[in-house]
Amino acid sequence: MHIVNNGGVCTPLGFTTAACAADIKGKGKGNNDLALLISDVPAATAALFTTNLVAAAPVRYDKEILAEYEETIGIIVNTGNANACTGEAGFDGARTMAKHVEEYMELPEKSILVASTGVIGTKFPIEKIVANIPSVCDNLDDEEGSAFAKAILTTDTVHKEIAVVVDTEKGSYSIGGACKGAGMIDPSMATMLCFITTDAMVDADELQDMLEKATKSSFNCITVDGDMSTNDSVFAFANGMSEVEIDNDIKKYAFLNALSYVCKELALMIVKDGEGATKLVTIDVKGAKSEDDARKCAGKIANSPLVKTMFAGCDPNWGRLMSSAGASGAEFDPEKVSIYIDELHYVENGTLIDESLEEKAYKIMKNDAYTITINLYAGSAGATYYTCDLTKAYIEINADYRS
Amino acid sequence: MHIVNNGGVCTPLGFTTAACAADIKGKGKGNNDLALLISDVPAATAALFTTNLVAAAPVRYDKEILAEYEETIGIIVNTGNANACTGEAGFDGARTMAKHVEEYMELPEKSILVASTGVIGTKFPIEKIVANIPSVCDNLDDEEGSAFAKAILTTDTVHKEIAVVVDTEKGSYSIGGACKGAGMIDPSMATMLCFITTDAMVDADELQDMLEKATKSSFNCITVDGDMSTNDSVFAFANGMSEVEIDNDIKKYAFLNALSYVCKELALMIVKDGEGATKLVTIDVKGAKSEDDARKCAGKIANSPLVKTMFAGCDPNWGRLMSSAGASGAEFDPEKVSIYIDELHYVENGTLIDESLEEKAYKIMKNDAYTITINLYAGSAGATYYTCDLTKAYIEINADYRS
Repeated sequence: MHIVNNGGVCTPLGFTTAACAADIKGKGKGNNDLALLISDVPAATAALFTTNLVAAAPVRYDKEILAEYEETIGIIVNTGNANACTGEAGFDGARTMAKHVEEYMELPEKSILVASTGVIGTKFPIEKIVANIPSVCDNLDDEEGSAFAKAILTTDTVHKEIAVVVDTEKGSYSIGGACKGAGMIDPSMATMLCFITTDAMVDADELQDMLEKATKSSFNCITVDGDMSTNDSVFAFANGMSEVEIDNDIKKYAFLNALSYVCKELALMIVKDGEGATKLVTIDVKGAKSEDDARKCAGKIANSPLVKTMFAGCDPNWGRLMSSAGASGAEFDPEKVSIYIDELHYVENGTLIDESLEEKAYKIMKNDAYTITINLYAGSAGATYYTCDLTKAYIEINADYRS
Repeated sequence: MHIVNNGGVCTPLGFTTAACAADIKGKGKGNNDLALLISDVPAATAALFTTNLVAAAPVRYDKEILAEYEETIGIIVNTGNANACTGEAGFDGARTMAKHVEEYMELPEKSILVASTGVIGTKFPIEKIVANIPSVCDNLDDEEGSAFAKAILTTDTVHKEIAVVVDTEKGSYSIGGACKGAGMIDPSMATMLCFITTDAMVDADELQDMLEKATKSSFNCITVDGDMSTNDSVFAFANGMSEVEIDNDIKKYAFLNALSYVCKELALMIVKDGEGATKLVTIDVKGAKSEDDARKCAGKIANSPLVKTMFAGCDPNWGRLMSSAGASGAEFDPEKVSIYIDELHYVENGTLIDESLEEKAYKIMKNDAYTITINLYAGSAGATYYTCDLTKAYIEINADYRS
């Protein structure tokens, strides 16, 4: 497997994208906010959605389509409006934007999915979208992966895309991905918006199964603020155009590995770009009694505002790590716990090894990225979560989001 | 029942307090950090403690004492060091500080409880405490309630105390209270540090039962940052010196009412003084399917960083309220939900009633305090939570806590 320079969703064969400005963000025509991803041939499609009871209209629409069909042709995406809490009109809007793409491109009915992201609870501007569908459909090409990746962003500061190529005896296939997400990211749920493409031949059930596995150790292990959106979705499209079949266990293993890699790299890009974030911190819990305990402990630490502000201040205030671990519900003996900051053994048997280590810990925590390893000595299960620091910029971004 | 002007823990008969500077906070002698509360006669004692697995040494010590004794004489409290994650030496420290008070004041063994608050995981400075115990014991008087209330603070900006008098046919009794807590306040746990005194005659079991009830609708309904401390404790001491017995259901009802009032007022003082907070927001969930659903929903909203930053920005971004409600696990139909901001009916059947209401909502949200009412129309249960806005000052306070 190797990484493709500047790769993205158009790296696999037969995928084209386009983006245009439909004035949904309300900031004029300079800002793309409508994006389209199309496969040349029908693609096996898998998806994971938010578990939020207040699911956005596009989520409800896509679930209906995917309950009926295993293959789709692509997806139309808008930013600037989440089309959530928009009632019957919002659901009609989701259906209408898909239908207009299908009609303009002469595609079968119900072959286009929909995704939206942005402000919740504002009237969905379907007229603006409909007016711009010809323009976005006419602009499709296979070199515009980055334009697609840029058009799906909201408070993100950088676009997020990646692609890898996997070589097999019977030729090569590739997997590409693009995603958005900076706030409202919670580990226990589906995710943010993510679009994966591949030209490997893999059926929809297999793809769904592998997408779930890859998500569990990537998008479900990241946290920015512990909130969960109404729109979180991950989509995977497999169009088979490489003609490489994923038809035995070895190939499945390799595919899952590559897919997991793509998901994890995209997930890390999201955390690094967390609203106001300046640091990527890996929380590695070891020695837990069960995987559930490990995830609870890592998740509680990764989500704690007190832990995250301590990261912002580069303060090795390990008591906050202990306190969060203790509040997580995981079972362990506090007097056995070890904590490492990168390679630095900082806490042993639940107490600071030596106060002189504080200066060393501070120096490590000045870095842009580091790992905190917590060994609970209660068993052999582990979990790794990725989080960021909580800074004043997070407040600025979210207090002013709509103004 | 009436409120006592400038009342506090010394308002009930037979309670004295003292405070002194023992240099635990490391900021010199100007800053009191050791405080003592004493009852003239043994007092029935009730307490609730943090459910954090990593419980501080004083919490473990007090639990041992209260498992054995129903009455105590009082409590010695220090700030500046939480005596948590301090191992065997920390537990010895907790026992030692109690013992020195007992010996110096010639009190029975195991009659003094202990509480600590401050930084977790730093060596407990027992020598400094022991050196100052004579001084704090010699300074006891019944007019120093405020000095006690001030000495127990950490990042709090104001001291928090209250007292009420309850008149009965057989005379009056009073209930006083003092507390500290500004960050690390979570609704699902015991609380912060709180000390309640009363001169009513009530036995320890009854007091424990009523303290649990009063806490459920006060300290367990407030949130600042969703974190839970290693030291959270609420203590209640009833010394009976008013000679008013709480011996029938009507008197119990009146006592519980007064105790609940004291707890709720103290709880609200904590939220108002939440780290960096500028607003007190009441989250009132109605029409829930069960009390559990109502609490989950109110708690999730009250704890959401996105909701709390929106309060800071006075932004009536009701989609964030819907999204949090949907993520809470409560069962309801999003398309039935109503939302009120104070008296303003803002959302009906899950959609904004009219965009022109936004300006009115914004004006209400500029106030220091307001109520958001969410009717889920799924049943008849309700819950009220109290929260504050999340501002840049929270980050400043917590990124720099130890420096």
